[in-house]
Amino acid sequence: MFKAATDKRVATFFAEGLEECEALVVCDLLFRSGIPVDKVSITGNIAVTSSHDVTVVCDRALTDEDFSFDDYDLLFLPGGMPGTKNLRACEQLTDAVTAWTQAGKDIAAVCAAPSILAELGLLEGKKATSNPNFQSVLAEHGATVLNDPVVVDGNIITSKGLGTCVELGLTLTQRILGDKATEQLKDKIVYMR
Amino acid sequence: MFKAATDKRVATFFAEGLEECEALVVCDLLFRSGIPVDKVSITGNIAVTSSHDVTVVCDRALTDEDFSFDDYDLLFLPGGMPGTKNLRACEQLTDAVTAWTQAGKDIAAVCAAPSILAELGLLEGKKATSNPNFQSVLAEHGATVLNDPVVVDGNIITSKGLGTCVELGLTLTQRILGDKATEQLKDKIVYMR
Repeated sequence: MFKAATDKRVATFFAEGLEECEALVVCDLLFRSGIPVDKVSITGNIAVTSSHDVTVVCDRALTDEDFSFDDYDLLFLPGGMPGTKNLRACEQLTDAVTAWTQAGKDIAAVCAAPSILAELGLLEGKKATSNPNFQSVLAEHGATVLNDPVVVDGNIITSKGLGTCVELGLTLTQRILGDKATEQLKDKIVYMR
Repeated sequence: MFKAATDKRVATFFAEGLEECEALVVCDLLFRSGIPVDKVSITGNIAVTSSHDVTVVCDRALTDEDFSFDDYDLLFLPGGMPGTKNLRACEQLTDAVTAWTQAGKDIAAVCAAPSILAELGLLEGKKATSNPNFQSVLAEHGATVLNDPVVVDGNIITSKGLGTCVELGLTLTQRILGDKATEQLKDKIVYMR
């Protein structure tokens, strides 16, 4: 049973060919912490199939008439291929991400997805990380690439891959709810690092 | 695209109210390693909804006429509540798990699910672990409870919770494919521990 611990709300964007666990592990940690999170399909179809052939039923679609970015406080872009290419090709999303990030609102991306932020020109002069295979794209677009599991520079939070998604979920929880909730979350998931 | 690296096959059992990421993170790691893994619904419905209200479409159902445990080499029980209670209440599954485990075949369980193995009498005299909230059940049924992220005792592999599921997936990969494939998998997921 979900009990909201905040009125802040997170949108996680699902494209065909995403890495479903990068999306779902972060959603899972937010859910456990009482942070409302919507799984938003960008495909027009509420059921989205991952790069690992896992079909997840989302909560809503970007094409829903009542969809509004104003409903959210943090946007999260999971990685995977071709999921990242599909997110990148969705103008409704990338236009909003650009305006959102430039307005100083919180955005998170993991694995290949930080390359979207780079290509949109949003990582110029910023510290960031990504899957090692995409770090050259970040560097080409003016980012200072770090090798930490999660890198926070102002409103931009980036992470490396599935192996760092628990740490990404903990970072987002800490950001929204603070240290005490994050320590409680670590206990809930039996965090042993 | 999936490329099989082995003819061994894993079944992961999905009950209503499971922790979807405990199931899916392990499936994800196996998939990436080329180990065929089926998501098997125990509900009669191919779409199963988790304790976090995430609906996942499984590959097949335990009630399918052509379902056979003989198709598999390793069975995996994810945790969550009431998912674990629902797995425990499924006689078709628990009867098979008992015969399977007693025959020395590989079985894995995480979080609350090792309590199923305990209650079936399968952990008597065995080393095992689980979510801390269920360790008393293991001890009451004769298990020696350890606090490692993953405990392997013969054919029985147990783990603690979502925070240890990457380690569980790595352990299963190592068991099925060996060290080299496991090191490659660590690189793929950007394992940083």
